Amino acid sequence: MIRHQSETDLQFITDTMFVAVMDNIFLLVLVTLLSVVQNVFFALKVEKECTGQHSKQQSIAFERLSCANRNCMDTYPTFLAVLWCAGVCLSQAPAAFAGIIYLVVRQKYFVGYLGQTCQSTPGFLFGKRILFFLSLMCVVGIINHLMLTYGGSDYKEYIQTITKAASTLLLLP
Amino acid sequence: MIRHQSETDLQFITDTMFVAVMDNIFLLVLVTLLSVVQNVFFALKVEKECTGQHSKQQSIAFERLSCANRNCMDTYPTFLAVLWCAGVCLSQAPAAFAGIIYLVVRQKYFVGYLGQTCQSTPGFLFGKRILFFLSLMCVVGIINHLMLTYGGSDYKEYIQTITKAASTLLLLP
Amino acid sequence: MIRHQSETDLQFITDTMFVAVMDNIFLLVLVTLLSVVQNVFFALKVEKECTGQHSKQQSIAFERLSCANRNCMDTYPTFLAVLWCAGVCLSQAPAAFAGIIYLVVRQKYFVGYLGQTCQSTPGFLFGKRILFFLSLMCVVGIINHLMLTYGGSDYKEYIQTITKAASTLLLLP
Repeated sequence: MIRHQSETDLQFITDTMFVAVMDNIFLLVLVTLLSVVQNVFFALKVEKECTGQHSKQQSIAFERLSCANRNCMDTYPTFLAVLWCAGVCLSQAPAAFAGIIYLVVRQKYFVGYLGQTCQSTPGFLFGKRILFFLSLMCVVGIINHLMLTYGGSDYKEYIQTITKAASTLLLLP
Repeated sequence: MIRHQSETDLQFITDTMFVAVMDNIFLLVLVTLLSVVQNVFFALKVEKECTGQHSKQQSIAFERLSCANRNCMDTYPTFLAVLWCAGVCLSQAPAAFAGIIYLVVRQKYFVGYLGQTCQSTPGFLFGKRILFFLSLMCVVGIINHLMLTYGGSDYKEYIQTITKAASTLLLLP
Repeated sequence: MIRHQSETDLQFITDTMFVAVMDNIFLLVLVTLLSVVQNVFFALKVEKECTGQHSKQQSIAFERLSCANRNCMDTYPTFLAVLWCAGVCLSQAPAAFAGIIYLVVRQKYFVGYLGQTCQSTPGFLFGKRILFFLSLMCVVGIINHLMLTYGGSDYKEYIQTITKAASTLLLLP
């Protein structure tokens, strides 16, 4: 009987699947796109500084800019991996929200490095708190999945509500 | 009734799902594998040059090679992220095609950097046009999904046809 | 009739899908999280060495540490891409196992670079064998998918058993 139905069912299941997948990742895709735009902005800044350097002072500025760009690029794959894992395992809205805050922190870090003002943070790791929050979301998502598989109890909705509330705590300075 | 059916249905849905997922990503996986092979090729080139350096001229060559490799590696996560988002959100064939063109451009960039010929491009960003095309695909895919969810109209097939036609424009030098 | 059922079916299919997706990626997510923790450990090591440097000897130590960290970070996106492709295309357990071995090799590489002992390997590429194994898994997965689509024969279960057995060979030094 299943065989007989399969042509219609297959199309129906496939269509449903894609809508459901898109429903659960489109915010993550948006944040990823934003981060790509930011990467391109950083790269263009470095490129512009590189072609325009003449005096010694500009050379130092280029050095600083290049270093800030490198630090940002070094943590970029880590950020993307944690963002997507958290979004897929648990809930996309808090993950995307944390991702946007991370991008803001990164922008401030880059500009601060540039301007040599008091904002300037020399650390290799910025946004540790956000990465920690996203990692925690992954762990909670996996634990919930294991509990659902072996114990039969599903706390996903409660956890998602708590996560949404907790994500606003990231706004604290 | 759903409960009663669930054993057979569950297996059927799961199987259908995996075939559908693989159908929609295997070209992206192939392009990713190609890019990994290229990465390994670049790394081996740098490693070979590093162990073999003696004279000052070779040291400069190593410097150039290492710099070209670094520029390629810096944009690699960005490229992967945009490639997969575009492939999943809209359509895999044009995304994979753009990905392969990107790999060709990268190869030319690396070889040009090596040979100090007129091909040599000092920019930090190459293949900007391809990254822009892939980002546009993501945005179009998300807009289409939102229109489908809130408006009920689905232009995905038209958009996919247009995208396939547009991707050939990337072949223009 | 499908239209009529769709409200219940849609929920059922979507729920089944997420459980199935989580079933097939949670080990990969765990390995990714472990690699993120390792990245943070490396970055903190570099940061600590950077802020504490005074003498010339410490400056050399920082140089070495920074170089080891850079080599690890350069191959990180490649590793993640191959890990996930292999896990999704074929089977997650052997992929996750190979991923954990890769993390152990990376830890040994970093510590060896640090200590200037006989462990120290100056190569840009470490864990080539593991990357090769994961790439092979991707290729086998894609070939199996194409055979299933065009030929109708499905060897996935045999291949998964063979892959699991083969992954233990990675333990050989």
